[in-house]
Amino acid sequence: MKFPISLLAIALASLMAAPLQAKDKPKNVILLVVDGMGPVYTSAYRYFADDPATKQVESTVIDELVVGTASTYPDADRGVITDSAAAATALSSGIKSYNGAIGVDRNHKPVQTMLEMAKAKGKRTGIAVTSQIVHATPAAFIAHNDSRKNYNAIADAYFDERIDGKFKADVMLGGGWDYFIRPDRNLVEEFTTEGYQYIDDMAQLGQLQQDQPVLGLFAKVGLPWALDMQGQPRLKALTQAAVSQLENRKGYFLLVEASQVDWAGHANDIAAAMAEMADFVDTLEWLKEYVESRKDTLLVVTADHSTGGLSMGAGNEYLWRPDMIKSLEASPDSLALLAMEQAPGQRAELIASALGLSPSQAQSAAIAQAEDSQALSAAIKLMIDEATHTGWTTHGHSGVDVPVLATGVGAEQFAGFQDNTDIAKKLINMINR
Amino acid sequence: MKFPISLLAIALASLMAAPLQAKDKPKNVILLVVDGMGPVYTSAYRYFADDPATKQVESTVIDELVVGTASTYPDADRGVITDSAAAATALSSGIKSYNGAIGVDRNHKPVQTMLEMAKAKGKRTGIAVTSQIVHATPAAFIAHNDSRKNYNAIADAYFDERIDGKFKADVMLGGGWDYFIRPDRNLVEEFTTEGYQYIDDMAQLGQLQQDQPVLGLFAKVGLPWALDMQGQPRLKALTQAAVSQLENRKGYFLLVEASQVDWAGHANDIAAAMAEMADFVDTLEWLKEYVESRKDTLLVVTADHSTGGLSMGAGNEYLWRPDMIKSLEASPDSLALLAMEQAPGQRAELIASALGLSPSQAQSAAIAQAEDSQALSAAIKLMIDEATHTGWTTHGHSGVDVPVLATGVGAEQFAGFQDNTDIAKKLINMINR
Ligand SMILES: [Zn+2]
Ligand SMILES: [Zn+2]
Repeated sequence: MKFPISLLAIALASLMAAPLQAKDKPKNVILLVVDGMGPVYTSAYRYFADDPATKQVESTVIDELVVGTASTYPDADRGVITDSAAAATALSSGIKSYNGAIGVDRNHKPVQTMLEMAKAKGKRTGIAVTSQIVHATPAAFIAHNDSRKNYNAIADAYFDERIDGKFKADVMLGGGWDYFIRPDRNLVEEFTTEGYQYIDDMAQLGQLQQDQPVLGLFAKVGLPWALDMQGQPRLKALTQAAVSQLENRKGYFLLVEASQVDWAGHANDIAAAMAEMADFVDTLEWLKEYVESRKDTLLVVTADHSTGGLSMGAGNEYLWRPDMIKSLEASPDSLALLAMEQAPGQRAELIASALGLSPSQAQSAAIAQAEDSQALSAAIKLMIDEATHTGWTTHGHSGVDVPVLATGVGAEQFAGFQDNTDIAKKLINMINR
Repeated sequence: MKFPISLLAIALASLMAAPLQAKDKPKNVILLVVDGMGPVYTSAYRYFADDPATKQVESTVIDELVVGTASTYPDADRGVITDSAAAATALSSGIKSYNGAIGVDRNHKPVQTMLEMAKAKGKRTGIAVTSQIVHATPAAFIAHNDSRKNYNAIADAYFDERIDGKFKADVMLGGGWDYFIRPDRNLVEEFTTEGYQYIDDMAQLGQLQQDQPVLGLFAKVGLPWALDMQGQPRLKALTQAAVSQLENRKGYFLLVEASQVDWAGHANDIAAAMAEMADFVDTLEWLKEYVESRKDTLLVVTADHSTGGLSMGAGNEYLWRPDMIKSLEASPDSLALLAMEQAPGQRAELIASALGLSPSQAQSAAIAQAEDSQALSAAIKLMIDEATHTGWTTHGHSGVDVPVLATGVGAEQFAGFQDNTDIAKKLINMINR
């Protein structure tokens, strides 16, 4: 039998170069959930972000990191479409549950989450999100509750529940004043009394003390739309601060959530959706560089489900034209609020100028008839949908599989098709060994 | 430096076991295009095919083989949504072209296709499709024409154009009497005069002479819906016959197309779509077994684009209920034709019984008002959409990336994200070396 000696040499060299034991056991695990990001969102973002000056369509950092897909169905006899709570419970614990479940199984029994396991292993733990920090996705990593709607009880659990006497999360960054500073309980005071530093302005992210846990709340509920925060720090800043606080000898687990792609999908707002995707991509670019510059960290990115039944292309045209979205300086919601301050006769002109579109007669009528800012926002979104050829089928979720991205130590384990619970099981296996 | 000797032994053994030279050069290449199969179709098929008797959702053969995704945009300044002709030209030649292009570039210049390259290399070549064999996808592998609409000219090219004096395709199986037996030209006669065997009934597939080229046409245009051919041979039978005819010492290139997932998408017909997916899966299961039982063949499966803006879930409900589709014994189109033969007052009852649904008042009215079978079919499809919670945004295509599946020699090259032209370039590289 012939034997190619040069290839053997390469194989030997690669075997000797890689520290085999650590090869598939990362010290640090970062899970980034992009709420609502079905496959169409990643494709659409590529065309939205494309430089029209070049003939080629540039691939994105998402494209560079995509390795597989995941199914997302909940444990239920009602259908195949999950909500964020059941999906987050699947991703945090590897266990399917019912829609609405926060860290509990189908029998409402608490399940151990990977954040809790990491904490029990002596790692630091954290969350960095653009929703309120008690929203379904982060909540299902820290708390256990029958219903995602019990925001106050979930906030209480963040303080009251401990692992081996320790708080579950060393770093909590996102929105949520309404749930932490309440008439009945001031959790911010309780956390600071217990040694947490508290900040309520993203400008303070750079002034955090190392080696001291942190609670950072930057909005009453969720953060404003990315589209309304252009030029201001957002998810990347939260993520960088979280990573900086969490780094330590024993490693860390960090959950990042780009929470509002989903909210834009529910609102059928393609402009807000693309801006939330850009905010996620900004974060992902930094995380990729961070993880790939080290040899001890794993980054996995996935979505919990898709939202809105979004399609590029609608109404039989073979077109999708995202160009006009790029020049928007405010969300349809903000634009509608602004326009409602004008006299009714001047609203169409303001909107036309902001969108760079001349309204059709039907569109002008819809603007004139809008009785509140919500109706006006809906009319604006329809104008954008018609101009871009964007389609939607629902204000809820849809059942399509979601993308899985990975890089760093152990990334190869996430290739191909898997269930969302498989993602959790692989991560738990890495954290628990 | 420590060195794990057992792992070295494994590495050596695997190096010695694999015939390294042939490792990424398959003798036979099978490309299976599922026209219109965006990611939602593969997810939806899993839930459609799931055995309700088991608590778990069984993964499908598609899930087992998925390795990546592909972008599909055409070469055009008009948008990002391809038609089947531009996508098939990208897949056959690696070159982006305009919508409508059959094996020609943006300047209408013919481009060499992988089928032609395989033929020039002395391999056998074939196509097996459920559309007419001159439809856009197969046409873009054999012919060169400014427009996909020139079916007769494309059929002529199948006979008139040669590679080194040889016909381009040794095996052509699908529909298309209308284009091959015409008042102005009888291409079936011409092919048989030149040594082709001709069959026009799928029952004859088992009686083909080996080592003799074959033209098999089984319908005027495309084959009937899979949903209307239950229990009869369809794409799997065509594929098995093609493979059997093509096998030879020098290898072969075979294009298989599950053509009508796209047609079901255009028709916004979820029942027909799931039956076409089942017909594809039936074929894929056989192909997987065939390829994995050999060491000389590559199978790549992808789609040219997605169709219809399909979503599981619509109208704000977190549900998708495909169960009622499973029991259908005829397509909505066929059912509508049948119902039109009844007295108007009896149509609703026939339809209700065939669907296992009681029509709502609005649905009964739509049935009663339908003036022709097309309108009636639309009413039936709406009933099915409402019962299953299926959504659509267009009767055209959409721009989402499509799945890429692969197994066999060189399959690992198709992992992760790629453009549809990259798929072609990788295959061409394997065929041409
Ligand atoms: Zn949601
Ligand atoms: Zn089509």
